[in-house]
Amino acid sequence: MRNQTAVDLRIDADWIVPVQPAHKVLEHHSLMVSQGVILDILPQAEADSRYLFRERVRLPGHALIPGLVNLHSHAAMTLLKGYADDLPLMTWLNEHIWPAEKRWMSHGFVHDGSRLACLEMLKGGITCFNDMYFFPEATVDAALEAGMRVAAGIIVIDFPSAYAADPDGYLQKGVDMRDRYRHEDRVSFCLAPHAPYSISDRNLEKVMTYAAQLDLPIHIHIHETHDEIHQSLEAYKVRPLERLRLLGMLGPQFIGVHAVHLLNEEIDLLASHGCHIAHCPSSNLKLANGVAPKTAMLERGINVGIGTDGSASNNRLDLFEELRLAALLAKGMSGRADALPAHQALRMATLNGARALGLDDRIGSLEIGKQADIVAVDLGGANTQPCYDVISQLVYAASRAEVSHVWVNGVLRVEQHRCLSLDESDLLHRARAWRDKLAED
Amino acid sequence: MRNQTAVDLRIDADWIVPVQPAHKVLEHHSLMVSQGVILDILPQAEADSRYLFRERVRLPGHALIPGLVNLHSHAAMTLLKGYADDLPLMTWLNEHIWPAEKRWMSHGFVHDGSRLACLEMLKGGITCFNDMYFFPEATVDAALEAGMRVAAGIIVIDFPSAYAADPDGYLQKGVDMRDRYRHEDRVSFCLAPHAPYSISDRNLEKVMTYAAQLDLPIHIHIHETHDEIHQSLEAYKVRPLERLRLLGMLGPQFIGVHAVHLLNEEIDLLASHGCHIAHCPSSNLKLANGVAPKTAMLERGINVGIGTDGSASNNRLDLFEELRLAALLAKGMSGRADALPAHQALRMATLNGARALGLDDRIGSLEIGKQADIVAVDLGGANTQPCYDVISQLVYAASRAEVSHVWVNGVLRVEQHRCLSLDESDLLHRARAWRDKLAED
Repeated sequence: MRNQTAVDLRIDADWIVPVQPAHKVLEHHSLMVSQGVILDILPQAEADSRYLFRERVRLPGHALIPGLVNLHSHAAMTLLKGYADDLPLMTWLNEHIWPAEKRWMSHGFVHDGSRLACLEMLKGGITCFNDMYFFPEATVDAALEAGMRVAAGIIVIDFPSAYAADPDGYLQKGVDMRDRYRHEDRVSFCLAPHAPYSISDRNLEKVMTYAAQLDLPIHIHIHETHDEIHQSLEAYKVRPLERLRLLGMLGPQFIGVHAVHLLNEEIDLLASHGCHIAHCPSSNLKLANGVAPKTAMLERGINVGIGTDGSASNNRLDLFEELRLAALLAKGMSGRADALPAHQALRMATLNGARALGLDDRIGSLEIGKQADIVAVDLGGANTQPCYDVISQLVYAASRAEVSHVWVNGVLRVEQHRCLSLDESDLLHRARAWRDKLAED
Repeated sequence: MRNQTAVDLRIDADWIVPVQPAHKVLEHHSLMVSQGVILDILPQAEADSRYLFRERVRLPGHALIPGLVNLHSHAAMTLLKGYADDLPLMTWLNEHIWPAEKRWMSHGFVHDGSRLACLEMLKGGITCFNDMYFFPEATVDAALEAGMRVAAGIIVIDFPSAYAADPDGYLQKGVDMRDRYRHEDRVSFCLAPHAPYSISDRNLEKVMTYAAQLDLPIHIHIHETHDEIHQSLEAYKVRPLERLRLLGMLGPQFIGVHAVHLLNEEIDLLASHGCHIAHCPSSNLKLANGVAPKTAMLERGINVGIGTDGSASNNRLDLFEELRLAALLAKGMSGRADALPAHQALRMATLNGARALGLDDRIGSLEIGKQADIVAVDLGGANTQPCYDVISQLVYAASRAEVSHVWVNGVLRVEQHRCLSLDESDLLHRARAWRDKLAED
């Protein structure tokens, strides 16, 4: 008899979709986890003879995919979900969202909102999110409590808030946060300057200095609306992306969010600098900004991930929804039904997001040696039967409602649709309490 | 003490969204059902003193909405869900869908496929669907078994199939079906000529004759692709809609499906004739046809309902998905965030669909005297909390996964997410068996 290796966890599933290599679907395989890491992926029959396990989870009718990476969120804004919809963008911001934030923003607001967002995201198969908001340490705490992975934004904006008084204050608080949490395995960081229109050149230069010194990505809204482009042309005589290029900000550490309005030469610029894009299709439609030229970006080799944006402008922190919408819009806008096929959409919501965050050596695909961030999707129900093509089914038929189990670093966080790490009823109680306060205004 | 009226069923919910009048949300009301009809809707406190009930269902945290009306489906095609995705339209049809249909089409295929579709639709809050497919009597049987409402299509196409040999055969079989089921309370009928490009003028005229004699709507695909318009210009020297106008087909009995490619004068034509449109946003995107000009159609007073289309071109028979997408696309395409507000999207998926089918005197809204086709949506979970605006939450945040209870004609068909009328495990078993056969090819 051969020597058998002992592992912590064995998961058997009808299908494993590793994402890397693309197109691949492994049938009736087992995934072995040891100390939070994927140790092996092999046929179930082989697994029987080669491994001993402490725990085994059998998931017939399920597919395993990598944990989804939400490349752009404002988690705490889940407390503003549906607070003001169907309004013109500037009315929405000036008369509703900003006044509510001004009045209610606090560490407690961000902590409660982020935990509620983590609950929604985790149950929907999101294991990692790239966040930008005030009081980011409260969001990091929420992610740690949830057992999720977070890329915490060191937010910078030229306007004061309850969190910080000025750009130097934002930077100082953000860097302090980074120092406090830097040894947490599941926490990484980005510089998160809000947008070119809300930050001066001088402060953007400071952001770049910190990003270089700390070797961190820069996470920034870019070319979301026509207005911001017009404003930039008036104030700086150049479009926002050109302004960032002149400042020297574009490069492989750059994560631009939205990128809806791009000239062809701007797509080339992003490609030639190795920039990453966070595509947020629901938010771009809902706020009437349009559709990002994702097919053109992907064709020119730009690494495009997918984000939900915040709940105030999307209302669902649901990457299954976004990846399906990304694929459908690519086809509808290009006139090519074969544009952005299912496997590419799934890759955008996993490996591409991980790559943008500089985490693709650790997460984003189910490969030996990577962290065991794993989502089980139940394809056995009426919504997903019959099943001819697993990847197609995951993207076009399944939804987050089919997510049954979620592991992060090999730790089970969602079991049979129930979140094990957060107290759902307490969080819902808090959500209702915040609603009562905010609805008074 | 006042005289108390006895009713069959009392449903208490935190919110009732009647759809008519628009915007209205009734808080803490009760809905009374007697003999399948809505007898009263009134504050819960008043209900206590005025009514006795045989059964009471209490739904705290839930909203009641009218059953959703799917204005365009090919239910049986659920057996082809994901059979061939990400392919150019003509490759998809000619090399995959049509050969599969030719090989496998039968009464049994349509019956199994339709029951599976009914299971998916009913659990997702759809209580009525307007279907077009071969062997429509098998789909009617499926709907009756499910306890749903169906508008059965008397399908006509110039090509032979396993169902009928020629247009006269299709018409004869369809009219026989109509005679057989005409006394079924939950069954109505449409003439369902497939499309202008697949039927000659002579046969379209026969369809019109039958529609006039039987007083039925005409349900037809129209202006879905550029190709069909070019073909019509070549063959008939006019665009398809103009051809139908010349034949005299346009009028308030006309339900055009898709209507993606419309000139301004064609929108006027549809409006001035009182035509109805079935908007299928997912299908139009997925097959790369584009986005229908729904905002322009609605602004000119055209009655636009929403359809899922068949599972081969959408992969989800999910009207929550479609109504959200309809609203988001309207904003994104028009550049106006206030275009197609939530209440209008909900109306499209309910009352507008009912009106197109000539059923708006009986269904489509929660009003006294209408049939009790009711859907309960649980807004108490993490995806839908906090809740500031119930209609917004239903459209932008909720999904079919939040549908907990469904009644049709006052009969409970879905209870706590479980379908009471169909044998789910049997249908899933059948779906897998069909898959094994079809995947062999």
